[in-house]
Amino acid sequence: MEAKFQELKNRLLEINDLNSAAALLTWDQTTYMPPGGAPARGRQIATLGKLAHEKFTDPTIGKLLDELTSYEKSLLYDSDEASFLRVTRRDYEKAVKVPAAFIAELFSHAAKTYDIWTKARPANDFTTVRPYLEKTLDLSRKYANFYPGYEHIADPLIDDSDEGMKASTVKKLFAQLREQLVPIVKAITSQPAADDSCLKKNYPEAQQWPFGVEVIKRFGYDFSRGRQDKTHHPYCIKFSLGDVRITTRFKENDLGEGLFSTLHESGHAMYEQGICMDLEGTPLARGTSSGVHESQSRSWENLVGRSRGFWEFFYPKLQQTFPQQLRSVSLDTFYRAINKVERSLIRTDADEVTYNLHVMMRFDFELQMLEGKLAIKDLPEAWRERFKADFGIAPPDDKDGCLQDVHWYGGVIGGVFQGYTLGNILSAQFFETAVKAHPEIKPQIKQGEFATLYRWLKENIYQHGRKYTATELVQKVTGGPMSIEPYIRYLKTKYGELYKL
Amino acid sequence: MEAKFQELKNRLLEINDLNSAAALLTWDQTTYMPPGGAPARGRQIATLGKLAHEKFTDPTIGKLLDELTSYEKSLLYDSDEASFLRVTRRDYEKAVKVPAAFIAELFSHAAKTYDIWTKARPANDFTTVRPYLEKTLDLSRKYANFYPGYEHIADPLIDDSDEGMKASTVKKLFAQLREQLVPIVKAITSQPAADDSCLKKNYPEAQQWPFGVEVIKRFGYDFSRGRQDKTHHPYCIKFSLGDVRITTRFKENDLGEGLFSTLHESGHAMYEQGICMDLEGTPLARGTSSGVHESQSRSWENLVGRSRGFWEFFYPKLQQTFPQQLRSVSLDTFYRAINKVERSLIRTDADEVTYNLHVMMRFDFELQMLEGKLAIKDLPEAWRERFKADFGIAPPDDKDGCLQDVHWYGGVIGGVFQGYTLGNILSAQFFETAVKAHPEIKPQIKQGEFATLYRWLKENIYQHGRKYTATELVQKVTGGPMSIEPYIRYLKTKYGELYKL
Repeated sequence: MEAKFQELKNRLLEINDLNSAAALLTWDQTTYMPPGGAPARGRQIATLGKLAHEKFTDPTIGKLLDELTSYEKSLLYDSDEASFLRVTRRDYEKAVKVPAAFIAELFSHAAKTYDIWTKARPANDFTTVRPYLEKTLDLSRKYANFYPGYEHIADPLIDDSDEGMKASTVKKLFAQLREQLVPIVKAITSQPAADDSCLKKNYPEAQQWPFGVEVIKRFGYDFSRGRQDKTHHPYCIKFSLGDVRITTRFKENDLGEGLFSTLHESGHAMYEQGICMDLEGTPLARGTSSGVHESQSRSWENLVGRSRGFWEFFYPKLQQTFPQQLRSVSLDTFYRAINKVERSLIRTDADEVTYNLHVMMRFDFELQMLEGKLAIKDLPEAWRERFKADFGIAPPDDKDGCLQDVHWYGGVIGGVFQGYTLGNILSAQFFETAVKAHPEIKPQIKQGEFATLYRWLKENIYQHGRKYTATELVQKVTGGPMSIEPYIRYLKTKYGELYKL
Repeated sequence: MEAKFQELKNRLLEINDLNSAAALLTWDQTTYMPPGGAPARGRQIATLGKLAHEKFTDPTIGKLLDELTSYEKSLLYDSDEASFLRVTRRDYEKAVKVPAAFIAELFSHAAKTYDIWTKARPANDFTTVRPYLEKTLDLSRKYANFYPGYEHIADPLIDDSDEGMKASTVKKLFAQLREQLVPIVKAITSQPAADDSCLKKNYPEAQQWPFGVEVIKRFGYDFSRGRQDKTHHPYCIKFSLGDVRITTRFKENDLGEGLFSTLHESGHAMYEQGICMDLEGTPLARGTSSGVHESQSRSWENLVGRSRGFWEFFYPKLQQTFPQQLRSVSLDTFYRAINKVERSLIRTDADEVTYNLHVMMRFDFELQMLEGKLAIKDLPEAWRERFKADFGIAPPDDKDGCLQDVHWYGGVIGGVFQGYTLGNILSAQFFETAVKAHPEIKPQIKQGEFATLYRWLKENIYQHGRKYTATELVQKVTGGPMSIEPYIRYLKTKYGELYKL
């Protein structure tokens, strides 16, 4: 048994190394690669992905898993070994259902579509990208149909990023949330908008960068096992548990951009850095779902980084860093500015409160498109109408309408948006649990201390990697199922105070 | 036939992609990787290397090559297709002779030895590294013996970097060179040493870097298909023909260090960048041998970059860059300083003239060790004696004696040093041929123009990649065999003038 277990582990390690190498090639592509490297780089990444997929779907993996079934049953459910076998089996059973040729077609189509989109979006040209998106929808449906027996056609796609979640579960949660959110948004936006002009002064990158670094070091992001570079779109990427990097971008006329994206990505990175070293090189060594991952980025960005307590400590330091820009701006004004709520066109620029309405709209569209109830050709108009209904304004064009997000244009349609709002919900649910266990967390944040919060997150969430699904993890950590209540409580308290609701 | 040819090409492309990915992992390891990434990175590089080796030694490759034999015979010798088949066959036949387990042992031993050496060298501790080096010698002999029928046991090792060359050929060339070199060294070193204090002032890195960049851009190094970063040891590395990077290091108290290593590495890089794009992704797409590669780095570093004509153009610019340091230093003084000849302990710091004596000594030791005539335990003493005989001084310790070069401590013993001196010989032979065909080259260099030289090198050497072996290439380009005469003429003219010999 031990020899078979070791063989399986070695094979998975080799696959992990191929995927890690592909990740580094991607990182380099967006950070330091000279333009001449592009054609070969795309092919090299595809080659590594193809080899990893081939090796993972090799029948020997299935055979080893079969032979190890009784061994697995003899182990504790959450032992490293049993978890390794359980998660590997789940991944394997999903992977072998999809032919390699289909995966290759999907990737190649996604790459082509992405290329078209990068030109179509600035040109506000939905027509050109439309046939590509139609094929994407077609491929997304085909993909889902490799997993017959689903309740909703979106389920297999949702399961890829939020394992175990279904369209019906998400719909129910979102409906509850929507019911509570809409009145809050209405109450806030009926008041005069907050003044955020203090964020729009000139903030040189050279001072922005070290300030963000200082903050995330205090959070617990470990620079000896990571680094921060600049890219067009910020992201977090892992090459091993000892090397989890983040990227950022700065706008010199918008202080929030670089700062909050740095805090956001550091949350993703601390999750990955915090995974138990014993899981290194196995499929367990990453965040368990898109929703739980997003809960960590949103916790550090919003629950911590946009809280008043946090800025009681950091605002004097920020004023020292930018004396000219902020000398005469009070903490209250600054705090209101970074928490401005408004009906805006772009999801990625949206505030904490309205953000979820953006996500829900996309989630609903995904379901309708997959169900065949919304045709691609009707998407621009559907977007405008729904946006007007939800936000009271209509996007003036497709560029800032249905062309704005890369997701559908660089992958599949389905399962790609729900994680953002699940993350918001979970961030508050986890945070409330942490604060209940350690009431000193909030006073510590006011002192610029985050060790208790970080340790709690590491112990309760980070270290486990994929040992528990999101559903299992929420139950284990909070003692109950996923719930929107803590998130609503959080929003009502914070924005109730800010807007005297 | 065409389908088989395409299949072989596709397989080789996949192997190329694995090796290119491994190269990027190595580059990142020495440039930007945080320390925490080290353990996994070593393993990831090894995994990619192992997969590439497995895929290349797959019997299907041999079968395809067999089936394509008559097709190859029907093609022109130097057509892309025939060259591809010829070089692939040669590589394949070499690769399959060595068992994969042996390769793995060799790599793992080399990595261990390198680790020990990095600590042993600063500690001047040969004793600790000695058993490792003994095993290296043992493995090097074993490696050679996978290729029975050699004339000298070093031949298979020499063939790995300088294909087609043998110990006997190299020995003969080196003996001729030595006979001519020794009197020149003697004549120069009997005179007072040149004053190079002007290079040892304070030269801030921030000004050194852009100056070097400006020079190599003028040479023809294409930054849209490359970039320059800092590393502990400078090197050149390729990920595709569109992405050939160089690294450098600066010493603020030694202007020569960063500048000449930049010119040196740009020579390697221009060779790789200059390979015909049609060869991309094939085994033909790299420099043909260690000697020819080094001829290019040495040409641009020395024949161009340490010439008087070059500095007639660039010295005023250098003075503008460093006015305080160089205002009162004449061109003549500077030119003598960068061409100072002296009996020094360290190969990598040696001047153009004495450099070859360092190499020859190491080459002779390699042969003696492989022949069993020099035991590892006797290496330190043998080094001291030979050094004293050749240079008139003895190294005070092993650190600056037999521990100084990484080569034996990070790979095999045998075949690793001759390329440096072959490169010097070839640099002059090629350069003389170029100047004969285009007498305007030298006047152009005085104007900071390098286009004619670059074009000649690209057309005659770079574009071919590995289509021709070094021996074939020298014949084709110069109309005769490899010869030391041009190099001796070059040294006698240049140093005859400098030292009024």
